[in-house]
Amino acid sequence: MAIIGGEPTCPVAHSLDVLGDRWSLLIMRNALRGSSRFSEFHESLGIPRDILTARLTTLVEGGVLEKRGYQSAGERRRDEYLVTEAGRELSVILAALGEWGARHAGGATSLRFTDAATDEIVGARLVTAAGRVVDAREVALSSR
Amino acid sequence: MAIIGGEPTCPVAHSLDVLGDRWSLLIMRNALRGSSRFSEFHESLGIPRDILTARLTTLVEGGVLEKRGYQSAGERRRDEYLVTEAGRELSVILAALGEWGARHAGGATSLRFTDAATDEIVGARLVTAAGRVVDAREVALSSR
Repeated sequence: MAIIGGEPTCPVAHSLDVLGDRWSLLIMRNALRGSSRFSEFHESLGIPRDILTARLTTLVEGGVLEKRGYQSAGERRRDEYLVTEAGRELSVILAALGEWGARHAGGATSLRFTDAATDEIVGARLVTAAGRVVDAREVALSSR
Repeated sequence: MAIIGGEPTCPVAHSLDVLGDRWSLLIMRNALRGSSRFSEFHESLGIPRDILTARLTTLVEGGVLEKRGYQSAGERRRDEYLVTEAGRELSVILAALGEWGARHAGGATSLRFTDAATDEIVGARLVTAAGRVVDAREVALSSR
């Protein structure tokens, strides 16, 4: 995949090579909520079949979904798409997008990220190595 | 802007209405690093002028950039694009994308987010209300 944006080492640009399309992130949102079949993504997202096929291929190549065959009794063999460990790590990105959208883009707070072990709600924050939370409006961005 | 993805209340979908394109996020990356002029974005990103014009308009309408006129001595009046407070809050999303890309998409760790007051490096993490960091692979996502 081609790196766009003029900086071949920028990790944001590399992420967007895999995820740089709104459908890709919405497919991963639904996969993290438990969807795994082509038909589930197709029906819940209303995404055209040819675009869904292309995006699933990119997400498998990008290592965030794994394609596996499965067969229910009496049905023909189908593929399902399971979230990989790298895919689970996208939760931080989706949580950050969801919180920002609820605050600034008119979305409702309809997504709930929780610690699977304790059921406590979690949110995306900027944190120092020592574990101190820093307000996103108080950070500086530079290149190195 | 139209909400795609079948869920009109989902805040991820609302965010992607403003940001759901790789150029938009790369423009915001460069804006947070200090770029403000059309020519700076055009040259540093290698983005076609018509696409840049459209994306800047969407980002201004979405409230993450503010367009202001400025005039240097002896030059004609030009526009500059300044990051708003809502735009600064995108740092969490960009930090999460950057870290994920450095780990999983082949990018180098070339971006540095720091606490502007103390210069400590910060990273995007999922955190409970009590301030406990939870591994992104240990969270569950549901709708409410």
